[in-house]
Amino acid sequence: MGFLFERVVIAGVGLIGGSLAMAGKKHGLFGKTVGFGRTRRTLDKALELGVVDEVCDDISTACAGADLFFAASPVESIVPLCLKAAHSLPPDCVITDGGSVKGKMTAELTEKLVNPSRFVGGHPIAGTEKSGPESAFLTLYENRYTILTPTSITSSEAIRKVRAMWEGVGSKVVEMTPQEHDRALAVISHLPHVAAYALVETLVALDPDKAFRGFAAGGFRDTTRIAASHPEMWRDIFSMNAGEVVNAIREYEKSLAGMRKAIEEGDFAGLTKRLEKARQARIEIDQR
Amino acid sequence: MGFLFERVVIAGVGLIGGSLAMAGKKHGLFGKTVGFGRTRRTLDKALELGVVDEVCDDISTACAGADLFFAASPVESIVPLCLKAAHSLPPDCVITDGGSVKGKMTAELTEKLVNPSRFVGGHPIAGTEKSGPESAFLTLYENRYTILTPTSITSSEAIRKVRAMWEGVGSKVVEMTPQEHDRALAVISHLPHVAAYALVETLVALDPDKAFRGFAAGGFRDTTRIAASHPEMWRDIFSMNAGEVVNAIREYEKSLAGMRKAIEEGDFAGLTKRLEKARQARIEIDQR
Repeated sequence: MGFLFERVVIAGVGLIGGSLAMAGKKHGLFGKTVGFGRTRRTLDKALELGVVDEVCDDISTACAGADLFFAASPVESIVPLCLKAAHSLPPDCVITDGGSVKGKMTAELTEKLVNPSRFVGGHPIAGTEKSGPESAFLTLYENRYTILTPTSITSSEAIRKVRAMWEGVGSKVVEMTPQEHDRALAVISHLPHVAAYALVETLVALDPDKAFRGFAAGGFRDTTRIAASHPEMWRDIFSMNAGEVVNAIREYEKSLAGMRKAIEEGDFAGLTKRLEKARQARIEIDQR
Repeated sequence: MGFLFERVVIAGVGLIGGSLAMAGKKHGLFGKTVGFGRTRRTLDKALELGVVDEVCDDISTACAGADLFFAASPVESIVPLCLKAAHSLPPDCVITDGGSVKGKMTAELTEKLVNPSRFVGGHPIAGTEKSGPESAFLTLYENRYTILTPTSITSSEAIRKVRAMWEGVGSKVVEMTPQEHDRALAVISHLPHVAAYALVETLVALDPDKAFRGFAAGGFRDTTRIAASHPEMWRDIFSMNAGEVVNAIREYEKSLAGMRKAIEEGDFAGLTKRLEKARQARIEIDQR
């Protein structure tokens, strides 16, 4: 019995869930991995690719005897999925997830789970634009941060095991409150997505005849790459983290208006100071 | 003879000038390339690396007998440089440049050059974050757009030769007015730079204790990569193209405020439509 978890249910066998299943097996953390999902074709694909050991489209069968349940489904569906799974999971089974917003979900699960102390909110800061079992790969989490968001009622044993799992697949684990997580992610992830979508929207508005968008070079392309992300996924994230995202956009609008005014008023000394400060901060981020 | 240009003065032997010198020689367009600049160390480096055939720090010596003068110096310095060079250039020598803003410069040169018909404004949409002779390379302009901005007084022979030069080094040449150029570049290049600098400024404002900037993942990094660009260079570009840049920032602020309001008011159907439209436009840009 030397596994960290003997029977692991991976609910959602795409990039996030599939990569954890593969890495957990590889590193000897998981005994058996069971992929759960509602789409037969996806499950079959995951099995065929060896992403998980077994697949199952019935949640009670999948959950019977599990000691870890990992919810890797779209962020809006995590709460109902965990509540449904909880009916069939053994009482001491650890529940965790990979959702990009933590506050609202953690509050709901804390209120509605019969034994909420076994839920450990998690968010691996890793991903690509791809999705589906084909996109899963062994090394996705290596040297990436995973944020855990336990609360005052979370079992320390559950935290310990979930931390050991992420560290076991090569991730650097940090803990913060769900609120701190959501504030941080609003700035480092959610705002850049809004900014990128809005840049493309601005180009479309100012180039109605598609006269010059063809000349868009590296700067525009890099800056807006993430505007090719899935609108439904981002709508859900913006919706679940609305308060913090709105705060971050407001601060960004303030910054833009400040730079615009400096240009309008010809305050290029002031503008240069701001650009230099931003450049230094950007360079520091790359050096971390 | 057989060369498109017999004696080419490259004023500024960094990434832009050096790469044109190298590619023009390689493709048999240039007879002799003469690097001009004020910093002896840079000139020596360019000579040592074989970027140009000769170097010279005296402008009248460099310009004597030239049939092409290419100004590849920082955008603010192009007008004084061309005016100074014009004293020593033969009267039929073509003058062109690689500056990122065209309107103001073209107006000034048209007014002040003794024979302005030989000036053809140009802007190769190519570059990296690097600078200096070491950063120059043969293929910089291959498959990249170069915008030429002739006016009603520009000599058609000068346009033909400058076009042949850029096409000869692999570039796709388009012509537009200086004003169209500046409007286009404000949106596809200058605005993304403002947006990136402002995103980093926002992160700094919302993360005063540097608590979470370390978690910044691919999305933030890509979106803000160009915020590591040189503040002085961008200050000059924003200054010379102030009107169009301010217009583009205003439109961007409108787009951001619209998305923020949709989130605040819970209009997620409306928001999804906007994200979807932006995503489609972004995907189209990559397919060009």
